[in-house]
Amino acid sequence: MRAARIHAYQDSVEDALTIDEVPKPEIERPTDIIVEIAGAGWCQTDNHVIHGDWDEHYGPTLPLTLGHENAGTVVEIGSEVETVAVGDQVLCQPMAVCGKCRPCREGNDNLCENVEAPGFSMDGGFADFMRTSELAAVTLESVDPVEIAPHADAGITGYHAAKRAVRKLDPGDHVVIIGVGGLGHIGLQVVGAMSATEITAIDPKEDARELAESLGADHTLDPTTDDVPAEIDAITDGQGAAQILDYVGQDDTAGWGPAIVERGGDHHIAGYGGHVHTPTQAMVGTEMNYCGALTGTHTELQELVQLIERGDVDIHTTTYDLEDVNEVATRVRDGEVLGRAVIVP
Amino acid sequence: MRAARIHAYQDSVEDALTIDEVPKPEIERPTDIIVEIAGAGWCQTDNHVIHGDWDEHYGPTLPLTLGHENAGTVVEIGSEVETVAVGDQVLCQPMAVCGKCRPCREGNDNLCENVEAPGFSMDGGFADFMRTSELAAVTLESVDPVEIAPHADAGITGYHAAKRAVRKLDPGDHVVIIGVGGLGHIGLQVVGAMSATEITAIDPKEDARELAESLGADHTLDPTTDDVPAEIDAITDGQGAAQILDYVGQDDTAGWGPAIVERGGDHHIAGYGGHVHTPTQAMVGTEMNYCGALTGTHTELQELVQLIERGDVDIHTTTYDLEDVNEVATRVRDGEVLGRAVIVP
Amino acid sequence: MRAARIHAYQDSVEDALTIDEVPKPEIERPTDIIVEIAGAGWCQTDNHVIHGDWDEHYGPTLPLTLGHENAGTVVEIGSEVETVAVGDQVLCQPMAVCGKCRPCREGNDNLCENVEAPGFSMDGGFADFMRTSELAAVTLESVDPVEIAPHADAGITGYHAAKRAVRKLDPGDHVVIIGVGGLGHIGLQVVGAMSATEITAIDPKEDARELAESLGADHTLDPTTDDVPAEIDAITDGQGAAQILDYVGQDDTAGWGPAIVERGGDHHIAGYGGHVHTPTQAMVGTEMNYCGALTGTHTELQELVQLIERGDVDIHTTTYDLEDVNEVATRVRDGEVLGRAVIVP
Amino acid sequence: MRAARIHAYQDSVEDALTIDEVPKPEIERPTDIIVEIAGAGWCQTDNHVIHGDWDEHYGPTLPLTLGHENAGTVVEIGSEVETVAVGDQVLCQPMAVCGKCRPCREGNDNLCENVEAPGFSMDGGFADFMRTSELAAVTLESVDPVEIAPHADAGITGYHAAKRAVRKLDPGDHVVIIGVGGLGHIGLQVVGAMSATEITAIDPKEDARELAESLGADHTLDPTTDDVPAEIDAITDGQGAAQILDYVGQDDTAGWGPAIVERGGDHHIAGYGGHVHTPTQAMVGTEMNYCGALTGTHTELQELVQLIERGDVDIHTTTYDLEDVNEVATRVRDGEVLGRAVIVP
Repeated sequence: MRAARIHAYQDSVEDALTIDEVPKPEIERPTDIIVEIAGAGWCQTDNHVIHGDWDEHYGPTLPLTLGHENAGTVVEIGSEVETVAVGDQVLCQPMAVCGKCRPCREGNDNLCENVEAPGFSMDGGFADFMRTSELAAVTLESVDPVEIAPHADAGITGYHAAKRAVRKLDPGDHVVIIGVGGLGHIGLQVVGAMSATEITAIDPKEDARELAESLGADHTLDPTTDDVPAEIDAITDGQGAAQILDYVGQDDTAGWGPAIVERGGDHHIAGYGGHVHTPTQAMVGTEMNYCGALTGTHTELQELVQLIERGDVDIHTTTYDLEDVNEVATRVRDGEVLGRAVIVP
Repeated sequence: MRAARIHAYQDSVEDALTIDEVPKPEIERPTDIIVEIAGAGWCQTDNHVIHGDWDEHYGPTLPLTLGHENAGTVVEIGSEVETVAVGDQVLCQPMAVCGKCRPCREGNDNLCENVEAPGFSMDGGFADFMRTSELAAVTLESVDPVEIAPHADAGITGYHAAKRAVRKLDPGDHVVIIGVGGLGHIGLQVVGAMSATEITAIDPKEDARELAESLGADHTLDPTTDDVPAEIDAITDGQGAAQILDYVGQDDTAGWGPAIVERGGDHHIAGYGGHVHTPTQAMVGTEMNYCGALTGTHTELQELVQLIERGDVDIHTTTYDLEDVNEVATRVRDGEVLGRAVIVP
Repeated sequence: MRAARIHAYQDSVEDALTIDEVPKPEIERPTDIIVEIAGAGWCQTDNHVIHGDWDEHYGPTLPLTLGHENAGTVVEIGSEVETVAVGDQVLCQPMAVCGKCRPCREGNDNLCENVEAPGFSMDGGFADFMRTSELAAVTLESVDPVEIAPHADAGITGYHAAKRAVRKLDPGDHVVIIGVGGLGHIGLQVVGAMSATEITAIDPKEDARELAESLGADHTLDPTTDDVPAEIDAITDGQGAAQILDYVGQDDTAGWGPAIVERGGDHHIAGYGGHVHTPTQAMVGTEMNYCGALTGTHTELQELVQLIERGDVDIHTTTYDLEDVNEVATRVRDGEVLGRAVIVP
Repeated sequence: MRAARIHAYQDSVEDALTIDEVPKPEIERPTDIIVEIAGAGWCQTDNHVIHGDWDEHYGPTLPLTLGHENAGTVVEIGSEVETVAVGDQVLCQPMAVCGKCRPCREGNDNLCENVEAPGFSMDGGFADFMRTSELAAVTLESVDPVEIAPHADAGITGYHAAKRAVRKLDPGDHVVIIGVGGLGHIGLQVVGAMSATEITAIDPKEDARELAESLGADHTLDPTTDDVPAEIDAITDGQGAAQILDYVGQDDTAGWGPAIVERGGDHHIAGYGGHVHTPTQAMVGTEMNYCGALTGTHTELQELVQLIERGDVDIHTTTYDLEDVNEVATRVRDGEVLGRAVIVP
């Protein structure tokens, strides 16, 4: 079968992957499943993998097939597999969790202590077939696997933080969504579908702000021209935002927290790259929380699929052939992909 | 009556207060009560008030009687007062909350939007009598008001953060208490009484660490000589602390968070002075939370009094005469007071 | 002014109230407000008051002006009133809570230990003016007081239980609403606005079921002809309902719990009249909860007003003159009022 | 090896089991483990199994080896087993859960949809060896397997309900424990170790009440002579119990709920046999909850083991030889076993 692989880490993403002919993966453990890939999302993180940024964390043996946002059809199952059958269409949880450690048993499998990760620690989904674990499969009813593929990772992360926010929101509260990209455009819709609140979306890109408005944002701000704290103060009548969903996680976005949060509120950090630099006095005085958010759980991915099946969350994807992986990498690097790119082998 | 007042802000705490003869306070609003002060705790914050550090926040008219940790006997009540009677012994919640704003009505009166504060915005308890609100009074059964006075503020703050931690603790979890002073020695006992966990207390002072051990800490660390992250890693078998209670809030203590917290755990910030300087990637990777904690609520002060009445929390105080206020200020400045100092008018 | 009063309890609601000329109420406590009534909802409970069913609980002195679902304009305020001003339009929380007891201070003022209740323990709103407490007033922005009046009690009760359910609902879960009357038609809309779930509404009346469908119910059942447990089993693929909102509380509705609830789910009891008769083994085997729900809190009434202001909850009312109170009582008794009846003095 | 089995259901427990020589169990699935039984608790439920009361639920093929409270040493593991090793001492979770269904993935494996149960649906632990799943094993550090065996089921059930109660308890609250048997004597200690509350234990047996006092109960009541509601009213100054742990679940104990509960409190139903017969008006008026509690989760069993390892929970057991199973059945039937009986093969 064909697989888009890296043979060595490299600084440039241009021509980083080669389309190799490799053996089809086989069942190795009785809990394994083999998925024929219908679509595999390309994510900014794939570019980081090409650079070797995740080598210290996962230490895979190269060559490695990339692709961690995968969906397709189950074509083979191990002897212990019980919850999916050959022929089922499935979305793959990015992490193949162990199901045995205490976090997994507590329902927090996003914190699994023994995680495997296709596209990082083992071969991923930019290929005709992929091996993963039964525990990673979320069965699809009517959603097209190609459409939903890129939401395996971006979607679950957007949903995970948004659900935490929703649990604390009351009607009339204000919510701020920072970053309306792959994660944020999901988070925004989740907040809209599961709360009765006023939403302000912040993004420097005009098309992102337009997308936010079309998805239900009540206000949008451009941080390159708007004074964010002053605008939030005006929008909320000085009350502040009960919940902040920061899908960017840079110095400036994290730094807005104490100035725009309602007392007792939360600033969820779901994106990263910068630092929190905040006086402890500001945190005490507002009794605010900075809350790290790490991908999401299997049951949350099931819930996101339900939202999409119900039509409460809209997803937009652009498809590319497997042969175009390097072009996609370049376009993602240059911010030229509108919505999410999906590789269709 | 006598009152220890500042007439002007000053850099030095030596001889900052004068003992003035002033009129006894009177009922001004029908919900007011007059308390004959049995004891009033001296807190590091009083030194900040002397320096004028709180002037911008509260803007009191000078001269001002200091003292925000007060207990005594109710000697006069307004016409609308129903929950305390003349003769009752009471501990005074530091903040005199409004009881009408949304945070108050939601049970979060530590976030009251219209707070008055004896010793900050109005005359406090370093005097024979003090006026406050019925809503600030917690009735005492058997506890000596002199003993409990300094726990109005330090105690409620120590308790508030510790109760939040306790709600998330399971048997066998690890807890780290940073700072075993007025707040931390309460927090430590609260965790001990309300959970079944292993406690590590961190303090650079030897007598503080000895106090921690006598109050039930399983381990103590001296941050000036111990490698805190390495020691916590060893104590917890690499698991980390499920909950961190940071009663110090300096750069170094806040910075320990990601290195010593268990994944999904909380670093409560109840002390302040420094900054959180943390990469958002570290927060996401551990899914940790930094949680600001601001004093505590009226019902939490009731609960702390219950713990003390039950004997689950021990309190240690040293008494001083009203005339000794300036000496106490100096000793507190120099870190020479063991436990909490109480002014007994 | 005019007031519709009962002079003696009686078995029949026909001609039970007389329109008396009485003095306008005056400020009695500094926290009182006087409201010029714009609308006052007539509730089935008023008929119970006429029968004397609430005498043991509240023991009012007769004659008594009825009316506990009130809205109008503030025309006079006591000296301590700070949160509303003369001229404000307000919806009145049915209970005038004390704001001082532990439940009030914890944010659970629906459990207030010292509650007064216009229309029950003191004169209510079937009159030109009414006295209540500042703490009972919820300020209105744009909603018509006449429209919203009947939602003071029915609405808050419908919302209170529904909000508890919503906090535990995940996308794709099933919800059952029992009874689509004054409470249920609010509860149904609240669940719709604040969750992404599949809703089944149960009511024996055809127009109630039609109302449910128009308000977003996915399925409706007629308990007089449908086999409720079998139908819920079919609708939910054997999974059961994660949350049940029982706004009826009769023997049969309460009894459906174990048969229709998902394991670990809740059956909220917000209506009453019958009994729970359930084997403890059935409760243990399903790990289900029966949850009593008592009206709602002040902050919840604020939230319901927000939902109505936002247009997320529709309210339907029919207006009557004060002179028509006895006709309304009869029509309510006979189930002839569609939606809620509002007396407009 | 030897195994104590029933060959047919019977009305009398006398001589119901025979000690048969049977083949040692073998690894059937790659996730199986074989445990050499050190101790297996005898539970009232075993008598029910003998009577065939669980046949409809589990439908095992007879003959069946009884015993669902098991502990011992791992002697063989399947190829996929990773979390326990040969030689480990383990306590066995009574249910062998699937780890794959939504309740398992959410952390509620006590609600597993595909549960197997040694001693019910497959051979149990009254034998020299037993087969179960890796997911059922809780590793022991220093606790003697013989001592802890009977706490696999009784202990986890006592702990599960008690932990739920503890999460809602504040210092000074009152707790009522109904039934101080195998479940209740654990629950009582858990509440004592994890809260700062006043505990009243209710049991008709004098030695049970004495045990309760020795384990920290502040008050005990004999329901055959004490007027329970009146006594609780007196003990709590009319406040009622914030949490009730009902380990009996008979008509009278369940019926005490509304009369003895604090408003807003919970009556946990962890034992069964009778009915809840309560007017819905009483549930609404007190806003109380009846909460079914079904055994407990794997992580809760880990936590209970931690409490025992720490010495916070004391366990008392009496040991019997495998040959004495029928005598034990008779003694348990007749209420003659003090504490829990353990069969030591």
